[in-house]
Amino acid sequence: MWVYCPWRGSRARARLPRGLLTAWLRHGRAASSYSATAEPSQVRALVYGKHGDPAKVVELKNLELAAVKGSDVHVRMLAAPINPSDINMIQGNYGFLPKLPAVGGNEGIGKVVAVGSSVTGLHPGDWVIPANAGLGTWRTEAVFSEEALIQVPNDISLQSAATLGVNPCTAYRMLMDFEQLQPGDSVIQNASNSGVGQAVIQIAAALGLRTINVVRDRPDIQKLMDRLKDLGAEHIITEEELRKPETKNFFKDIPPPRLALNCVGGKSSTELLRHLAPGGTMVTYGGMAKQPVTASVSMLIFKDLKLRGFWLSQWKKNHGPDEFKKLILTLCNLIHKGQLTAPACSEVPLQDYQRALGASMEPFVSSKQILIM
Amino acid sequence: MWVYCPWRGSRARARLPRGLLTAWLRHGRAASSYSATAEPSQVRALVYGKHGDPAKVVELKNLELAAVKGSDVHVRMLAAPINPSDINMIQGNYGFLPKLPAVGGNEGIGKVVAVGSSVTGLHPGDWVIPANAGLGTWRTEAVFSEEALIQVPNDISLQSAATLGVNPCTAYRMLMDFEQLQPGDSVIQNASNSGVGQAVIQIAAALGLRTINVVRDRPDIQKLMDRLKDLGAEHIITEEELRKPETKNFFKDIPPPRLALNCVGGKSSTELLRHLAPGGTMVTYGGMAKQPVTASVSMLIFKDLKLRGFWLSQWKKNHGPDEFKKLILTLCNLIHKGQLTAPACSEVPLQDYQRALGASMEPFVSSKQILIM
Repeated sequence: MWVYCPWRGSRARARLPRGLLTAWLRHGRAASSYSATAEPSQVRALVYGKHGDPAKVVELKNLELAAVKGSDVHVRMLAAPINPSDINMIQGNYGFLPKLPAVGGNEGIGKVVAVGSSVTGLHPGDWVIPANAGLGTWRTEAVFSEEALIQVPNDISLQSAATLGVNPCTAYRMLMDFEQLQPGDSVIQNASNSGVGQAVIQIAAALGLRTINVVRDRPDIQKLMDRLKDLGAEHIITEEELRKPETKNFFKDIPPPRLALNCVGGKSSTELLRHLAPGGTMVTYGGMAKQPVTASVSMLIFKDLKLRGFWLSQWKKNHGPDEFKKLILTLCNLIHKGQLTAPACSEVPLQDYQRALGASMEPFVSSKQILIM
Repeated sequence: MWVYCPWRGSRARARLPRGLLTAWLRHGRAASSYSATAEPSQVRALVYGKHGDPAKVVELKNLELAAVKGSDVHVRMLAAPINPSDINMIQGNYGFLPKLPAVGGNEGIGKVVAVGSSVTGLHPGDWVIPANAGLGTWRTEAVFSEEALIQVPNDISLQSAATLGVNPCTAYRMLMDFEQLQPGDSVIQNASNSGVGQAVIQIAAALGLRTINVVRDRPDIQKLMDRLKDLGAEHIITEEELRKPETKNFFKDIPPPRLALNCVGGKSSTELLRHLAPGGTMVTYGGMAKQPVTASVSMLIFKDLKLRGFWLSQWKKNHGPDEFKKLILTLCNLIHKGQLTAPACSEVPLQDYQRALGASMEPFVSSKQILIM
């Protein structure tokens, strides 16, 4: 019996045949270059069969591995983070939702174990990340199509590689694609301690941009400030301080930002707009406050503020895999130069996924949960 | 005594010396080309000395006319409309406010009576409109600097000329500058019965664009619909109808709009966003509902909607007078071809300004108040 392999094809939709979790085994002749064991191995994966609270709907299951055909790549996953967008996807609040049941996770680093006979761009030992969202990275092993993967250098840290394909890419594109910023220009952002926020701080510093970083107040605020300053943050200010009228003076020492990056929405984004320079752009890429973005009519008309959104999946769709590969290499170059590091991470073994999922949804989390396979 | 003439200079700021309304007379040698009566004539003007309710703060006053110097132009005003932005300016709710006391009105058509010796571009008999906002057009006569004026053809109707410089310019620029629309594309707008709204309908029709026009429900809705259809409106729909789920079917017959023009804000603009095509732009140019514009985070991120604002004064500042003159000629060309007419107007003698101001602020006004001097 040949079963549809959900990981094949350019869209790499994370689709599993309904109720057929154990049928992922593709029997039959193995591809000639398939150098791993001839017997299909057991795969452990975090699977959800319906949308809802991740703590309730995600389960660790045993899957069987498909055989490797001509254009397939057998990958052993090394590490995969839990991003806010992974949580949103499980909850059903995301711009694209895989068919269910699905394996969770959209990002991670894997190592090529074996390749099919027609695969030319990848070799055993290569490190790979998903080309697109929806691949399902929270598992020990998988057989993917070659075009669903992007090679990355294997001389960067495991944490950097595991967290390279989403947050730093989002940060870089938002800094480059909306306003023509010059060294010395400033950028304001909220949720500055998030994965994207930390990447923004570092990439902006590498580009000579000055950052104003808004964070929520918390008991260990000084520790957080010190850490973000170490990354290259010029100014760090709490949401509460930003609202005070005297904060106006704050902007006398720094050119008013022409770019604001909003991962929160609600009041926090209103504050970003208030401090944006005339003609500036606010880019929304997340909605942690679960409240809409509101702009006064006069801000739009008389201050000429522009409100935009950014979604990496859409950018990749518009620009194609070659541009994405270029972007990855640009970021790896920053990593090699020591200008971009992984966010603070907590490594958690796959079987302790409940702890990791819980921690990733705690308020004021200061480290990203990384599942180690 | 030489008194500062507020109408001179490139910015043409509508500034009157405080408490010195009668001192606008410039004594001394009249410019050699000043062909009007040697005696300064009395000017009647609608003046406000403080911001507030137009019915309370605007008064009809006698001013004295300044002498005409080298680069000056003596203009007899023929007609001037009352636009929403004029009302906002008097109320103090506008992006730029003239120094007080000020003459009201930012738009209108005047006829050149005489020109100073160094004026080369204008001649007696020419029709002129203000180059920028803040000129103070609600008066019988004035001496302006040449650069504060733009000549318009005098073979168009008085109402077209009087209403040419703000609303049709705003409509044309919004249709041209935000999305690259092709014939057959659609545009959605609210406040479709406003001066800008009517210009949008006509200019869009001339460009081969299909319009979806949202209006507030009212007792004489069929009459309004007929009138807008006569102007070239393809679809007319009330705010209430637009909110109904079954309106979704409405958009099966017409390509989803890539451009939305918002003069209302609040819930009305949320509806425009809901019906906008992915990647489309909503341009806000007014805020009749006195409520902000709100967009959900997912509309910005996953639907890639863009929120912008448009202010003609800023456009003119960015593009300069030559581009504005080109725009005026483009619109006059549409008028000559019968593709652009003045909005429905009620002509009111200057001395009945209280009635005109009152009528301009009534809800569901279907005609623009035009002061006749």
